[in-house]
Amino acid sequence: MAVSAPTQPSGVYAAALTPLNAALEPDPVLFVQHCRWLLDNGCDGLAPLGTTGEANSLSVAQRIALIEAAAGSGIPMAKFIPGSGSCSLADAVTVTRAAVKAGAAGALLLPPFYYKNPTEDGLFAFFSEVIERVGDARLRVYLYHFPQLSTVPITTQLIARLMKAYPGTIAGLKDSSGDWSNTAKILQEFPGFGVFSGSEEFLLANLRAGGVGCISASTNVTAALARPVYLAWQDRRADDLQKALTDVRLVLQSYPMQATLKQVVAAISGNKAWVNLLPPNRPLTAAQANEVMTRLSAMPQMGAILGKAATKAA
Amino acid sequence: MAVSAPTQPSGVYAAALTPLNAALEPDPVLFVQHCRWLLDNGCDGLAPLGTTGEANSLSVAQRIALIEAAAGSGIPMAKFIPGSGSCSLADAVTVTRAAVKAGAAGALLLPPFYYKNPTEDGLFAFFSEVIERVGDARLRVYLYHFPQLSTVPITTQLIARLMKAYPGTIAGLKDSSGDWSNTAKILQEFPGFGVFSGSEEFLLANLRAGGVGCISASTNVTAALARPVYLAWQDRRADDLQKALTDVRLVLQSYPMQATLKQVVAAISGNKAWVNLLPPNRPLTAAQANEVMTRLSAMPQMGAILGKAATKAA
Repeated sequence: MAVSAPTQPSGVYAAALTPLNAALEPDPVLFVQHCRWLLDNGCDGLAPLGTTGEANSLSVAQRIALIEAAAGSGIPMAKFIPGSGSCSLADAVTVTRAAVKAGAAGALLLPPFYYKNPTEDGLFAFFSEVIERVGDARLRVYLYHFPQLSTVPITTQLIARLMKAYPGTIAGLKDSSGDWSNTAKILQEFPGFGVFSGSEEFLLANLRAGGVGCISASTNVTAALARPVYLAWQDRRADDLQKALTDVRLVLQSYPMQATLKQVVAAISGNKAWVNLLPPNRPLTAAQANEVMTRLSAMPQMGAILGKAATKAA
Repeated sequence: MAVSAPTQPSGVYAAALTPLNAALEPDPVLFVQHCRWLLDNGCDGLAPLGTTGEANSLSVAQRIALIEAAAGSGIPMAKFIPGSGSCSLADAVTVTRAAVKAGAAGALLLPPFYYKNPTEDGLFAFFSEVIERVGDARLRVYLYHFPQLSTVPITTQLIARLMKAYPGTIAGLKDSSGDWSNTAKILQEFPGFGVFSGSEEFLLANLRAGGVGCISASTNVTAALARPVYLAWQDRRADDLQKALTDVRLVLQSYPMQATLKQVVAAISGNKAWVNLLPPNRPLTAAQANEVMTRLSAMPQMGAILGKAATKAA
């Protein structure tokens, strides 16, 4: 099943973090500032309000306020794919509608994740209801495959059914399974489908196999290392660039992801408020934070990114 | 850690189903009617908006509208323990506050269920934030242990920590694990704690071990069989009554639970709208529905409950 979409989003996307104030309310000003910093520092686009963005720990109103803050601040919506999934049908519709209204390039949709082992019919019905209730030809759905957290996989059978029913709408998929063979299988079955790897570890492999880029938590920190891979993926230099990138990713993912990224962004920006996290996620302990920063600071490729932060942590 | 609560909710509670219209919007009039029917047909109380009530498939506004409809219709709030959990802190606070405002006897709180393997500190922080943000001395929290669906267990260590921090507030627990040894362990560690078994299969065992009753999906149908067990639990007749009850429960739980209960309630009430379910849950197929009704109709103890429905299905 071939999909042609000449202007489809591609490249290095960050699953942008959500900054929270001391009362654990999202901070839209700092959010927009971070979005802008990401676009200025290696990101081709932004996929906020996913797992990294703690969207399922936020209310619908909090999520929509962040989408509107970004749109209203001139963050280019053609490079903006917010998470809009929920286990609540009504909530998924409301947030997806807000994303479309804001002009977002797409909406990243989790399957409903409370009930376990739903049938394929049940999942099809969910996505179908969201698409039809939003009822807007501008909607581009990116399916969000993250079985470790959602517990509900997006199978190739489901993708095929959805693409057949909504050919102009089902635009791609983020594969956060960490299972490269799954991404490869999807790319083989659906040439031209907008497949993002969920980790920059697979960025080069994904591009070589026909994928469009990565949407990753850790590109909140590593975008400046990921972008050269994207730009040079057809060159022989690409493997070395990918290795330098992967080495950083592997350090980052050996700690609790959201807390670690917030810690590093706090260090880079010099703004301690970044470490705030909604429960059940918790900030790193001081010992963990020190260890992460020490390990990253020892990596030459992180020098330009950490800048003074590296000096501070050393 | 002993808990004294002379007026604590007890007996046979139904995890009341949520009726939906053809547009999949909750029907508050039919909901109130069903609540009343349950109280008139064997239920000591109601625990709507849990897993059976499809609460996580609903928006916050939809959930609150049902709580307010019940309160405003004279359903006794002293027998009303709605689910108010969410993976969103803000949403859990909003629904819990609405439950307290309505005068509900308690609020049944799931742990946040999106992120996997949260720390005990993270879970404590979540419940603590909900309790302190609601900030109302009338709040009585029932912890909702359903690891098969929430993926996040409520451990005895967490219960002990919460009871110590909020002794007047942490009132009990619904154990939907289906693991009787877990319920027994909780009752042994926390005498006087308001422990409901999550299935009426364990009603008698739970009462004998010091528990207060059951909050069950299937008591939407079996309450008239469960109530005699509760009334007679200290008699020698109790084991036979429990067996008649358990036999029905075992039939019901061998099919998809929400769909099956809605099917049976549709048959009992003669209102076909009852079969509507929010995705990803799906109504039973005609063949499944026929099979369930045939099996139930063949059970003598179901005669009075099914009434004419049994005749229709035969």
